[in-house]
Amino acid sequence: MSLDAVLARIDQTLPEAIDRLLALLRVPSISTDPAFKADCARAADLIAADLRGLGFEAAVRPTPGHPMVVAHGTGPSGGAGRHLLFYGHYDVQPVDPLELWHRDPFDPAIEETPKGRVIRARGASDDKGQLMTFIEACRAWKAVHGALPGKLTIFLEGEEESGSPSLIPFMKDNAKELKADIALICDTGLHESRYPAITTMLRGLVGEEVTIHAANKDLHSGMYGGAAANPIRVLAKILASLHDDRGRVTLPGFYDDVDELPEAIRAQWQALPFDHAKFLGDVGLSVPAGEADRTPMEMLWSRPTCEFNGIAGGYAGAGFKTVLPAEARAKVSFRLVSRQDPDKIRAAFRARVQSLLPPDCTASFVQGGSGAASVMAITDPAFEVTRAALSEEWGLPAAYVGSGGSIPIAGYFKTYLGMDAMLVGFAKDDDQIHSPNEKYDVESFHKGIRSWARVLARLA
Amino acid sequence: MSLDAVLARIDQTLPEAIDRLLALLRVPSISTDPAFKADCARAADLIAADLRGLGFEAAVRPTPGHPMVVAHGTGPSGGAGRHLLFYGHYDVQPVDPLELWHRDPFDPAIEETPKGRVIRARGASDDKGQLMTFIEACRAWKAVHGALPGKLTIFLEGEEESGSPSLIPFMKDNAKELKADIALICDTGLHESRYPAITTMLRGLVGEEVTIHAANKDLHSGMYGGAAANPIRVLAKILASLHDDRGRVTLPGFYDDVDELPEAIRAQWQALPFDHAKFLGDVGLSVPAGEADRTPMEMLWSRPTCEFNGIAGGYAGAGFKTVLPAEARAKVSFRLVSRQDPDKIRAAFRARVQSLLPPDCTASFVQGGSGAASVMAITDPAFEVTRAALSEEWGLPAAYVGSGGSIPIAGYFKTYLGMDAMLVGFAKDDDQIHSPNEKYDVESFHKGIRSWARVLARLA
Repeated sequence: MSLDAVLARIDQTLPEAIDRLLALLRVPSISTDPAFKADCARAADLIAADLRGLGFEAAVRPTPGHPMVVAHGTGPSGGAGRHLLFYGHYDVQPVDPLELWHRDPFDPAIEETPKGRVIRARGASDDKGQLMTFIEACRAWKAVHGALPGKLTIFLEGEEESGSPSLIPFMKDNAKELKADIALICDTGLHESRYPAITTMLRGLVGEEVTIHAANKDLHSGMYGGAAANPIRVLAKILASLHDDRGRVTLPGFYDDVDELPEAIRAQWQALPFDHAKFLGDVGLSVPAGEADRTPMEMLWSRPTCEFNGIAGGYAGAGFKTVLPAEARAKVSFRLVSRQDPDKIRAAFRARVQSLLPPDCTASFVQGGSGAASVMAITDPAFEVTRAALSEEWGLPAAYVGSGGSIPIAGYFKTYLGMDAMLVGFAKDDDQIHSPNEKYDVESFHKGIRSWARVLARLA
Repeated sequence: MSLDAVLARIDQTLPEAIDRLLALLRVPSISTDPAFKADCARAADLIAADLRGLGFEAAVRPTPGHPMVVAHGTGPSGGAGRHLLFYGHYDVQPVDPLELWHRDPFDPAIEETPKGRVIRARGASDDKGQLMTFIEACRAWKAVHGALPGKLTIFLEGEEESGSPSLIPFMKDNAKELKADIALICDTGLHESRYPAITTMLRGLVGEEVTIHAANKDLHSGMYGGAAANPIRVLAKILASLHDDRGRVTLPGFYDDVDELPEAIRAQWQALPFDHAKFLGDVGLSVPAGEADRTPMEMLWSRPTCEFNGIAGGYAGAGFKTVLPAEARAKVSFRLVSRQDPDKIRAAFRARVQSLLPPDCTASFVQGGSGAASVMAITDPAFEVTRAALSEEWGLPAAYVGSGGSIPIAGYFKTYLGMDAMLVGFAKDDDQIHSPNEKYDVESFHKGIRSWARVLARLA
């Protein structure tokens, strides 16, 4: 059977596939640092040239920031499969603190570790290794069949690690060209580092910075303490008001648009192995801190949160200073689920702040990120087909999982191109993405390529 | 009468007295900065030499830090007056930000301002100008009478602006030598910048830094938010718990050792002019923020407080970072009154923190300053005598006032030398002490000298 030939080809040519990944990893495409602008362009060029070699019409497309790579391929004439768009990003996180790396982050190598062979380099997992799984699957398919498996668009971004400033304008400007039947996104991981998984729920995000202003300058806490308003005290009271004793967020209407989990998903999640003792234990914790009547998995994947990401006010250096500060500020973020409206949540937060301001105090706000949750309509048969393909490859049942984080790209595909997205990835929890000594397991890479070959065989 | 001759002499020789102060102000005796160590010694030498010229036995006495000046003088043989100890400090605050000064802080000058003539320089008011008022009064007395007015000890410190590390050991080691009948301290101000005042109540202080620890590292608020404890949230809840809705501190027993104001003092304070609208208005506030049933004067002088001087945790820079921090900390200070015990208050605070820690969270503490309130026993006739002298000089009734700040020296004299202290000073609210463009009114200096002459005539 032809898929078997493709899988065999993938197995035989794994060393060359790794070499190609290493070549890409040698390019320090750090998007947030202007010093690496030329390297970002070089990474885009490298991939575009590779894709042209596979028969794609591939172009490096300029943006006000780093370029996009857009490649179109067609399968054998008359192919009636679905048009798939694959998304990944070729840019990487900065590498500091460099002294914590045990090798040059841009001098990649295969290392033997107690847990198996790994590819060590910045970007090995996030996202160069992951995006190359798809390209290598296409390559093997082409080698065996002489053609790509079907109608494919590859869409790679170079600004994912720096806030994607050019992404939405580019999608809007090229909506017709980029529209496909479904988007495949390879930027997530295996569940519990072992189970193949399709991420179908991503939390949204509202970020907000609030500053409480009181006196027009810092005061001496002896001379004024007792008579003058203290903005840290006001801020603490506001923050403390946001959760009740059961861990629920107290903003009016906060849970109005939060749906209970569909029974099918709930049952599936209950069956999913999830070692919450280990999950928390790894970071020195033991007791889930969220809503009292929810499981940790719900807390992370399907329940909204209000978290405090930063706070500052007055003197925080060594020693003591008897200052009564003029202002204090906090960064607050809400993770959203279901149909929660970011604007409504932001307005409710601001109303709460205003309602708790004593005389003489004012509040100012800086609006941070804003995005609704993404809940994939898994009714599209592509989801079940992909689940079967992944289960076959990994020998373990593939799961529909949620993610506590926010990957806005999935929502953008829906909003701007009107297509669903399917998030499949092969990263493991210990890949150290965004941290020193990032790695990608050779197993993730190898089985990732094989996984895509199986998905392509069924979908393309 | 002999006092009149002294006062006349003070008036006639004011230009020379100002010149002597300017010479002292030219010495940059910044005690906190080791670069100025020699300058501190030079300031001490200058004053000691001056005192020897007035007939004092004066010595510069070494300490592990900056030296003390100790000078003893005797009056005409057979004088039966009281032995007075005068305290001041010759060190000054740093001068940064230097660019906000309109002249070199150590190039003093007399300036004409709309409010009158001022002596402009770092230390002009705090405390070189103030300490020289006493020395100039002694000088005029000596010039007129050929002898000092009585048994006097002058005790000047060079570390007041840097925490007085050598003060208590020096007082203990030289207790017998320093013990007098009463201490005079010239480091306070006029009430409302106009009324001569004796400060009889000083608040105490307990400083405490608390850090809440949760996870063993900073976490991603998407990956962990909802399930992992957030130390900012815990800290906000603790801080918010410390005041009730009426502005009272909620620590158990906090008010047990707080005395109501004696009726005589209350009546006197009620009669005192105090423009609280201006006091708050000058810093952009309008509503007293302390206990609901107390006057602003009580809030500042005779009621204890709990203030938050600093707070920090997570990411507080520009923009947003989805971090769930491993720890958060706050600096908290309590101003104490009456018989409140610093150790007891500190223990009650720590107990409150512990009682509000959720699972997985721990607290650590850094102990800050600690000192009980000072309440002078104004039963000593010296107080009424001094009040009369001050009223006479300023043409306005002298007041017994409180101070919201903590001047530990007064308590030290009581604790280590067993003597009461009387705080009399001539600074005005707009003297900009500790800030750029510090000044001392020529009026403060001139009438300050005359005030001490009147006090010496009655007490020494």
